[in-house]
Amino acid sequence: MERPRARVAIVGATGYTGAELLRLLLQHPSVTVTALYAREKLTPRVSTVLPALTGLCDLPIEPFDADDVARRADVAFCALPHGASIACVEALLARGLRVLDLSADFRLRDASVYKTWYGAEHAAPARLPEAVYGLPELHREKIRATRLVAVPGCYPTASTLPLLPLLAAGMVRPERIVIHALSGVSGAGRTPAPSTHFPETGEGARNYKVAGTHRHTPEIEQVLGDVIGAAPTVTFTPTLAPMTRGILSTQYADLAREGVTVEAMVAEARRYFAGSPSVAVLDPGVLPDTLWVRGSNRAMVGYAVDARAGRVVAMGVIDNLVKGASGQAVQCMNLMLGEDEGEGLRGAGMFP
Amino acid sequence: MERPRARVAIVGATGYTGAELLRLLLQHPSVTVTALYAREKLTPRVSTVLPALTGLCDLPIEPFDADDVARRADVAFCALPHGASIACVEALLARGLRVLDLSADFRLRDASVYKTWYGAEHAAPARLPEAVYGLPELHREKIRATRLVAVPGCYPTASTLPLLPLLAAGMVRPERIVIHALSGVSGAGRTPAPSTHFPETGEGARNYKVAGTHRHTPEIEQVLGDVIGAAPTVTFTPTLAPMTRGILSTQYADLAREGVTVEAMVAEARRYFAGSPSVAVLDPGVLPDTLWVRGSNRAMVGYAVDARAGRVVAMGVIDNLVKGASGQAVQCMNLMLGEDEGEGLRGAGMFP
Amino acid sequence: MERPRARVAIVGATGYTGAELLRLLLQHPSVTVTALYAREKLTPRVSTVLPALTGLCDLPIEPFDADDVARRADVAFCALPHGASIACVEALLARGLRVLDLSADFRLRDASVYKTWYGAEHAAPARLPEAVYGLPELHREKIRATRLVAVPGCYPTASTLPLLPLLAAGMVRPERIVIHALSGVSGAGRTPAPSTHFPETGEGARNYKVAGTHRHTPEIEQVLGDVIGAAPTVTFTPTLAPMTRGILSTQYADLAREGVTVEAMVAEARRYFAGSPSVAVLDPGVLPDTLWVRGSNRAMVGYAVDARAGRVVAMGVIDNLVKGASGQAVQCMNLMLGEDEGEGLRGAGMFP
Amino acid sequence: MERPRARVAIVGATGYTGAELLRLLLQHPSVTVTALYAREKLTPRVSTVLPALTGLCDLPIEPFDADDVARRADVAFCALPHGASIACVEALLARGLRVLDLSADFRLRDASVYKTWYGAEHAAPARLPEAVYGLPELHREKIRATRLVAVPGCYPTASTLPLLPLLAAGMVRPERIVIHALSGVSGAGRTPAPSTHFPETGEGARNYKVAGTHRHTPEIEQVLGDVIGAAPTVTFTPTLAPMTRGILSTQYADLAREGVTVEAMVAEARRYFAGSPSVAVLDPGVLPDTLWVRGSNRAMVGYAVDARAGRVVAMGVIDNLVKGASGQAVQCMNLMLGEDEGEGLRGAGMFP
Repeated sequence: MERPRARVAIVGATGYTGAELLRLLLQHPSVTVTALYAREKLTPRVSTVLPALTGLCDLPIEPFDADDVARRADVAFCALPHGASIACVEALLARGLRVLDLSADFRLRDASVYKTWYGAEHAAPARLPEAVYGLPELHREKIRATRLVAVPGCYPTASTLPLLPLLAAGMVRPERIVIHALSGVSGAGRTPAPSTHFPETGEGARNYKVAGTHRHTPEIEQVLGDVIGAAPTVTFTPTLAPMTRGILSTQYADLAREGVTVEAMVAEARRYFAGSPSVAVLDPGVLPDTLWVRGSNRAMVGYAVDARAGRVVAMGVIDNLVKGASGQAVQCMNLMLGEDEGEGLRGAGMFP
Repeated sequence: MERPRARVAIVGATGYTGAELLRLLLQHPSVTVTALYAREKLTPRVSTVLPALTGLCDLPIEPFDADDVARRADVAFCALPHGASIACVEALLARGLRVLDLSADFRLRDASVYKTWYGAEHAAPARLPEAVYGLPELHREKIRATRLVAVPGCYPTASTLPLLPLLAAGMVRPERIVIHALSGVSGAGRTPAPSTHFPETGEGARNYKVAGTHRHTPEIEQVLGDVIGAAPTVTFTPTLAPMTRGILSTQYADLAREGVTVEAMVAEARRYFAGSPSVAVLDPGVLPDTLWVRGSNRAMVGYAVDARAGRVVAMGVIDNLVKGASGQAVQCMNLMLGEDEGEGLRGAGMFP
Repeated sequence: MERPRARVAIVGATGYTGAELLRLLLQHPSVTVTALYAREKLTPRVSTVLPALTGLCDLPIEPFDADDVARRADVAFCALPHGASIACVEALLARGLRVLDLSADFRLRDASVYKTWYGAEHAAPARLPEAVYGLPELHREKIRATRLVAVPGCYPTASTLPLLPLLAAGMVRPERIVIHALSGVSGAGRTPAPSTHFPETGEGARNYKVAGTHRHTPEIEQVLGDVIGAAPTVTFTPTLAPMTRGILSTQYADLAREGVTVEAMVAEARRYFAGSPSVAVLDPGVLPDTLWVRGSNRAMVGYAVDARAGRVVAMGVIDNLVKGASGQAVQCMNLMLGEDEGEGLRGAGMFP
Repeated sequence: MERPRARVAIVGATGYTGAELLRLLLQHPSVTVTALYAREKLTPRVSTVLPALTGLCDLPIEPFDADDVARRADVAFCALPHGASIACVEALLARGLRVLDLSADFRLRDASVYKTWYGAEHAAPARLPEAVYGLPELHREKIRATRLVAVPGCYPTASTLPLLPLLAAGMVRPERIVIHALSGVSGAGRTPAPSTHFPETGEGARNYKVAGTHRHTPEIEQVLGDVIGAAPTVTFTPTLAPMTRGILSTQYADLAREGVTVEAMVAEARRYFAGSPSVAVLDPGVLPDTLWVRGSNRAMVGYAVDARAGRVVAMGVIDNLVKGASGQAVQCMNLMLGEDEGEGLRGAGMFP
C-alpha cells in the first residue's frame, strides 16, 4: 500500500532558495506542496514572481500565518533571512510541524557564538539543543530523529565535506587550515545590490568578507570540531565569481605525517561516504568542476598532495542552491520522513 | 500490472545532445538506458567523458554496431552529425528498432531541398516519406504512429511554435516574415573552435550565416508550409549570444488585418496549445526570457503588436538542448511508446 | 605654439557614461578635466565611487552649481537622466559654456514627439532648434558650429549608421524597416534593478520594450528621416544580452531594386564614410562582432543580401558606452573645439 | 628637439599577447610598429586575423626572419610559446636588437630549475645571466641597463607584488605561504581547447595544475627569494574563472609578529611602491576587484589581517594580458629606451 504524500509548505517562497525548493518538491514523488508564504511579493499566483513555473504551479503566495500552515502542512521549509526565521520556526514547532530552517538561526549550537557573529542575542536559545545541523553525511541519524533541522550554509557544505574523512582518519592536522572558496552570485540572494549588478559582477572577481569576517567561518569551525572534538581556527576567504551557481572550495591543511598519498585519501573518502548518495569522490588526478554539479544535489570531492610543502589540497564543488541549500534541505526532509535519502534528488547535474 | 521498461540506446553519446539525453533518460520512469555508442571517445565508463555522471551511470561507450543495438535495445536515439546519421538510421530501422534521429538528415521531406542546403545527395531518399518531423505540437498523431522521427532543429522549434496558431487562424500574413533568433553557444556542439573559444565568445555578440544561408531556413519554411499549405520565404538571422543554453526567437509578420490584438493572439494560442504539456503561452505584456526554460522541455511563447507598423512581434524561448533537441526527442519517444507525452519532462526550468 | 587645453567639467560623473567620459578625457591630449558634479554619491575623491581611478584622478564630486561650472570650465558634459538634464543644460548655456548633453532631452527636434514618448511637456522647447544631433557622420558641420550637442542614443547610433549610405543612395526602401538590436547590460545604467541582477541576467536573453514602445524608436526614425526627407515608421526590438558592453544592431530593409549587391553596398558605404575616422566598413562576407569595438569609439558596419527575400541585412556594432555615448560625445567635443575629430579616440577595441 | 621614434617589431603577433602589444604600441607616443611576424596565420593584412584593427593597422604578418627584423626594427617583442622563443631571442640579440621575451624561456635563472619544470634542457643557458626578470617594481635599474628582458608570467606578477613590501619589511614569514589565484580564460591563449570551450567554461570554475605542479610556482618562489635571499616553498593553486581577463591572487602568510596591522602594511606598501606608476595600494578595508584594472597596466594591491589565525590575507589584481604580459613588456621597453616608465600606459581600467 502506498504511503500518503506528506503535505509541505514553504515559508519564504519568492527568493532563490524558495524557488529551488519548489523546483525540487514539485517533482518529488512522496510529497505535495500545499501552501506558499512570504513576507512580500504576495500574489494570487506564484508564477507572477517565478515565471519559470508558469503552467506548473498555480498556488498563491500568502502572508505567513502559523495556524494556517499547521492546517495545511505536515512539514515546513523556512527560507527566510536570519533573524526573521526564529519566530517563524518557534511558531511552527509549537504547532507540531516538522521544520527545516534554511537560515543561519539554528546552525550554531552556542548562543554566544551566534551573538558574536550575528550581532544580536539569539531569541530562542533554549531551542538550540534540539536543532540538528543538517549535514546528512555527518549527522544522518540525528536528522532522522529530530523535528528541527538547521540546513547548513553553502560554504560550510562545500568546505567541510572533503575534510571530514581526512580529519576523521587523522590524515591531516587541524591547526592551520586555510579555505579559499569561490561562489556564484545567486548565493547573494535575489535582492538587487551594487555588488551583484551585472555590469559590476560579470567579467570580474573579488574577495569579500576576508580574514575571519564571514559568518560561515564559525559554522565551518563547528563542523570540523564535531569530527575532531574541538573547533579549530580556520582562515576562510570567499570570492565572488562571475557565474550564477556553484561553489568551488579549496582547503589547505598540513599532512599529519609524511607519505600520505592521494590514493589513500581517495580510498578513505570512499569508505567514509559509502552510504552517501549525494557525494561522489573523484579518482586521483581528477579535479572537480562546478559545472559537473549544477542543478544537482551532488557534492564532488577531490584531493591532491603538495609533497614539496607537506600539504593536502582538498577540493569540493556543489551547486550552492541545491546541495548548498534547498536540495540539502530536501535530503534532510527525506530522512525525517523515513524516505530514502536520495528520493527526488538523484538527477545528474545539467552539463553543460 | 506495470508495463516493462523500454530498453533505450544512444548512438552519439559523448556530445551535448547525447549528454542531455542521458540526463533525461536516467530519470525517466518508463525506460532503461542499456547501451551507449559513439564514433570517438570510446571508454569503459561514460563518466570519463561526462564527469557529471560520476556515480550515476557506469555504462561503457562502445563502437556502433547495429546488431548489438538490436540485441540490447528497443528504441535508439541517434545524436550524430548530419550525413553520418543516415546509414546508422537505416541499419537500425532494418533491424526493427524505433529510431529518433536528432540530425538534420530526415527533417526535409524533399530530397532536392536537402541537396541544395546540405550540399550532397541524400543517401536514402526512399526513407524520407516515412520520417515524421518530430514537432509534437504540430504532428502529434503521426509521431505516435511512426518508427522514424526526425527531431526538429533548435531554431525551427523556437521560431515556428509562436507562429503556428497565428498562421492557422489567419491572423498574420506569411509573405514577409523576418525571424531574428539568438542562440546560446552549446548549439554549436562540443568540438572546440575559434568561434566558440571562451575569450572570443564571452562578452561578445555576432550574427552568422545570415541572409538565407543558415540550414534551418528551409526547415522553418517547411514547418510553416505545413500549416498554410505552401512554404513561404522567410529571412532568418541567427545570432550567437554569450550564454551556454537558450534560444530566443523573435518573429516579425504583417498582420492579416487591422485590429488584431495581443489578447486575441494569446487566446488563439492557448486554444491551439491546449493539449500540449510543453508549451506555455504567456499573458499579454509578459515577454519570455530564456532563463525561464533552462534545463526544461518547455517552450514559452509571447506576443506583442506593433500597431504603428501593422506587425506582430511573436517570441519563443526554449532550451536549445532540451525542447530544441534531446527533450523534444524524449517527448516524441513518449508518444511512440504510448506513454503520456510529458512523462519525465515535467520539470520546471532551473531558475536562476 | 601650443593651444591651451580646454577646461572640461562633467555633470553626472558617477554613472557609467560619466565614468567612461573620465576614462577618455583623462587621456585626451587637448583638454583638462577640472571639475566633477553629481546629484548623489558626493565625495571628496572620485575614486571612492570609481575605484578604477585610484591614483589617477583625485577630483571631488561636488553638488552641481552652474556658476561654479562657469568659473572652472569651458565645456560641460551632462550625463544626467532625461528630464533632469534640461535645467542643467539651460543654466550652462546661459553662462556661455559649450554643452554636450548625453540625455535624450534635446535629441528629438519636435517637442510634441518628445511629449508622446517621454510623457511630459518639454521644459525648454525654445532651445530645441539650437540643439544639434551629435552624429558626426551625418551632421559634422552643424556640430562644429553649435554650442549645444544632443549626443545620440546607443541604439540609434548602431542602428542608423549602416542604413545611412543605403538610404542616401536609394539602394533600399524606407517603408518596411525592421531593426533588431542586442545590447549589453551597461546600457541600463548603474542603478541596480531586478532586471539587471546578475543571476537573472547572466545566461539569459530577453526582449524588452518591443513593438514600438522603446524611446529610441522615434530617434531612429528622425535620423533616417534626415536622410530621406521624411521620417519612416520602423519596428524596433531591443534585446538584453548577457554581456556588459556592446550593441549589435541588425536592420532589415527591402531592396529598392533587384540586383543590388553586397559589393555595391560596401563600396557605397566606404564612399559615404570616407572622412569618418570612427566608422569601419567591413569587407563583403565579414560580419561584425561587438568584441571588435569594445572600449573603442569605432563603429563597424557590414552588409549581406538575402536575394531570396529581396532584403538587405545590414549590421552595425558599437560599444554602447563609447561610440554609443561618451566617446561620441568626445568626438563631438573635438569638432566643437576645432580639434581633429579623432583626437583621443583612435585606440583599437580591447580584444579579447 | 624630439627624439626619433623607436622602431618596434612583434614576433608572434596573432595571439592574445601579440594583439595586446599592438593595441598598446599603436597608441604609444614614442615608438612605431614597423613589422609583424608569426609562425602561422600569415596574411597580407593583420586585420584579417585581428579584425579589431580594421582600418587602424595594415601591416602584413610575415614569416619570422631575424635579418629582416634587424633591418626594420630596433626593439623586438617575442610573444611565442616557451621553447619556441629561445632561438628567436638568440638570433635577435646576435643582430643587436633589444629584446623583450614574453615566454617563460628566460625567466628562471637556474637552468636546472627550468629543466625540472619545463621538461627540457634549456637551449641557451649561457644567456640566462644576461636576462633580467622584467618586474620593474623589483628590478627597475637592471631593466634599464639590459638588452634582454624576460617578461614575468601573469600569476607571478599578481602574486608577488603584494608580498614584496611585507617580506622586505619583515612583516610576514616566508615559510608557509599559500597562494590561491583566479585567472580569466585569455591566460590560456588563443588556441581552442576543450577546457576553454565556452559551454564548458562559462558558468563554471575549476582548479587546475594544483599542488605544486603549475610552472609559475618556481617563478613565484624565485621572485620572493630575490627579496629575502632564498627562495621559499609556496603552495600555489590556479583557478580558471569564467571571465576573459583578470587575475585575482590571494596570498596567505603568517605574521612575523603579533600586532602587525593592516594600516602598517598599507603604509609600508605605499613607501615601497612610491615611485611605481603601475601599482596602486588600496586603503585599509578596500578589497581589489579585477574589474578595476581591466585593459590597464595597473596592479592594485590590498591587505587584510586575520588576527584570529595570525595571518595576512594579501591580494593583488591585474589584467593578465596587460600588467600580466604585454603592458608590463611595454613598461620594461620604456625603461630600456630611457622613456618615462608609464609612457603609453597611464590609462584607467575600462569600468565596467
